[in-house]
Amino acid sequence: MPVVGMVGGGQLARMTAAAAVGLGVTFLVLSESDKESAALVTHDVTVGSHRSLSDVSAFAAECDVITFDHEHVPGPILAKLESEGVLVRPGSGALRYTQDKLAMRERLTALGVPCPRFAPVASLADVAAFAGGTWPVVLKAVSGGYDGRGVWVCESTGELEEVLAHGIPLMAEEFVPFQRELAALVARSPSGQGAAYPVVQTVQVDGICREVIAPAPGLSQDTAVEAEAMALKIAAELGVTGLLAVELFETSHGGLLVNELAMRPHNSGHWTIEGARTSQFEQHLRAVLDLPLGSCAPPEGTFTVMANLLGGTDPDVFDRYIHVMAADPAVKVHFYGKEVRVGRKIGHVTIVGGPEDDVAEVRDRARRAASYLRWGTEDRD
Amino acid sequence: MPVVGMVGGGQLARMTAAAAVGLGVTFLVLSESDKESAALVTHDVTVGSHRSLSDVSAFAAECDVITFDHEHVPGPILAKLESEGVLVRPGSGALRYTQDKLAMRERLTALGVPCPRFAPVASLADVAAFAGGTWPVVLKAVSGGYDGRGVWVCESTGELEEVLAHGIPLMAEEFVPFQRELAALVARSPSGQGAAYPVVQTVQVDGICREVIAPAPGLSQDTAVEAEAMALKIAAELGVTGLLAVELFETSHGGLLVNELAMRPHNSGHWTIEGARTSQFEQHLRAVLDLPLGSCAPPEGTFTVMANLLGGTDPDVFDRYIHVMAADPAVKVHFYGKEVRVGRKIGHVTIVGGPEDDVAEVRDRARRAASYLRWGTEDRD
Repeated sequence: MPVVGMVGGGQLARMTAAAAVGLGVTFLVLSESDKESAALVTHDVTVGSHRSLSDVSAFAAECDVITFDHEHVPGPILAKLESEGVLVRPGSGALRYTQDKLAMRERLTALGVPCPRFAPVASLADVAAFAGGTWPVVLKAVSGGYDGRGVWVCESTGELEEVLAHGIPLMAEEFVPFQRELAALVARSPSGQGAAYPVVQTVQVDGICREVIAPAPGLSQDTAVEAEAMALKIAAELGVTGLLAVELFETSHGGLLVNELAMRPHNSGHWTIEGARTSQFEQHLRAVLDLPLGSCAPPEGTFTVMANLLGGTDPDVFDRYIHVMAADPAVKVHFYGKEVRVGRKIGHVTIVGGPEDDVAEVRDRARRAASYLRWGTEDRD
Repeated sequence: MPVVGMVGGGQLARMTAAAAVGLGVTFLVLSESDKESAALVTHDVTVGSHRSLSDVSAFAAECDVITFDHEHVPGPILAKLESEGVLVRPGSGALRYTQDKLAMRERLTALGVPCPRFAPVASLADVAAFAGGTWPVVLKAVSGGYDGRGVWVCESTGELEEVLAHGIPLMAEEFVPFQRELAALVARSPSGQGAAYPVVQTVQVDGICREVIAPAPGLSQDTAVEAEAMALKIAAELGVTGLLAVELFETSHGGLLVNELAMRPHNSGHWTIEGARTSQFEQHLRAVLDLPLGSCAPPEGTFTVMANLLGGTDPDVFDRYIHVMAADPAVKVHFYGKEVRVGRKIGHVTIVGGPEDDVAEVRDRARRAASYLRWGTEDRD
């Protein structure tokens, strides 16, 4: 059986490790410490830095293919490994579009993929020229940014000045008054096979994903097909191997605009563990190994709601866990083994609904479980 | 989070390890070698013998509760640990009924649970007195026996003599001309909560489980309720904590007789990983930790077929794996990381069907996948 190495020891690697158990492939993790989420549960853990060529290179030597829990491995390290014949999936040529948002916007625009209007900016004058007096203006760090950090929605010149003062490369984007947010998750293998999960609705609060409903309720068939086709096209054109998550805005007119890309298992796909025939974590492993892809379909007639579990103020989550288990035996809780800190993603909950279940009611149950686990009460956000 | 230790490093421990990742509890394994199925994927592996008091005792000292992948830990070791305050679940008082089949038969009979007629035997004369000239006669080792070893269906005096010559404690049982075999899987927690999975049909060939259909097709509601109630009663009366699998014969008149008991995750419950809201492996962990039990229900309208994957003659299963993935993207294959040997259980495949799927067709797909993985052809048993 082949050996897959994942660089990064977060919850995505942790859940990929669990998927590897069933798939039967050997799974190795390169983790920054032996206390990280994946390092706590994976048999083969190497402690090292994803920013060190020698660490990543030594790790890759143990693997048939390497892949990633995040987008933070420097491009030059990836290119160097590739030049030495390491199978890096996704490769540096694709990953750069997750590491450089300006390059991503330019490339997608060139491909005819609809995006918010954007421009690189370095000064107030640049922003003023871009925005023409319209507020708010979105500023983004060209590189970096994760879970909302690196994105600023500015309502005034003062706020713009504050961000510009960071002195990092920035781009401006139009603020999209979207109806809701969607995500299209697809897999693509090196031999070109593609597979698309049902398009989901994501609910973000303060830039953090809080809830995913799969499939997106009430989404027109046309829009769903358009989103899936767009994601498959991006994956193919950018040469993605493994998963590609495309975060989308659905505008008030039902149009789609690409917000962000991620080339790895994604928060919007956690529902697939219980809700789809092949979980995104298994699918990612299959794709990077160039194995035939699994079915992305949910069992007929089912839908799934996932709610992220954020840390509250009381670190001892266990008593609350017992309450949630007792209150709703159909809730599946996933813990990431992380220390509780306010606002940190420490797990998620999933509920699979059947043909006779009501989406709003299942969403409510998932929210109540996540709220109780966080705060010890069912109705706090 | 609590720490659960499982004694035994087989595939049941392996799949329990994967369940522990999501549940967020710390999971330790005591394995006879570092190459066993669970030892290959579990973060915390202790190599030691389940027959050594010092090994098991040192292992238990690291755990809040210990449980088992098999029934082979000697009773005196269990009793000693319990006397020292170790939480042993299931406890020695329950486990003895899986280690001593005569005691099990006597106890179940005393509880009014229907069993095949039985008697301890030590000689041909004993067997003759029991069977009264009826063939075949089933001989069982009173202790030991796993997956059919330790059970002999004898058709002649010569065959009886051969078994008696082993010189081990034996019992005779009537041969039950059953219509089919069923299994009832329940969980019971120390605080007395019980939960029952849908009753399944199992298909055995040469004493090895080959296929499980969940729920059992065409089973009358009355018989299903009777089987679940019987399993819950046995679990309560024997003081089982964790899972109890009750293997049953359904007679030609629709009656039920208990064949075997197992107090751990069971082959007849592997379907629950994909097919039920709470997998048997998570349920076992919840039960031994005295956490509220999860829902045993499948998503509405679904059914599941599992086929065991036995080793064939070609040890290199990987090429065949690729074929199966490509041929049926909805098949979920689980590999146990075991070396391929003819007839050895090296994995299983699962397919979840929906309301519009046909059970016979899904069974056929599962059988074809298992056959191809074993032999490289879809139609060999």
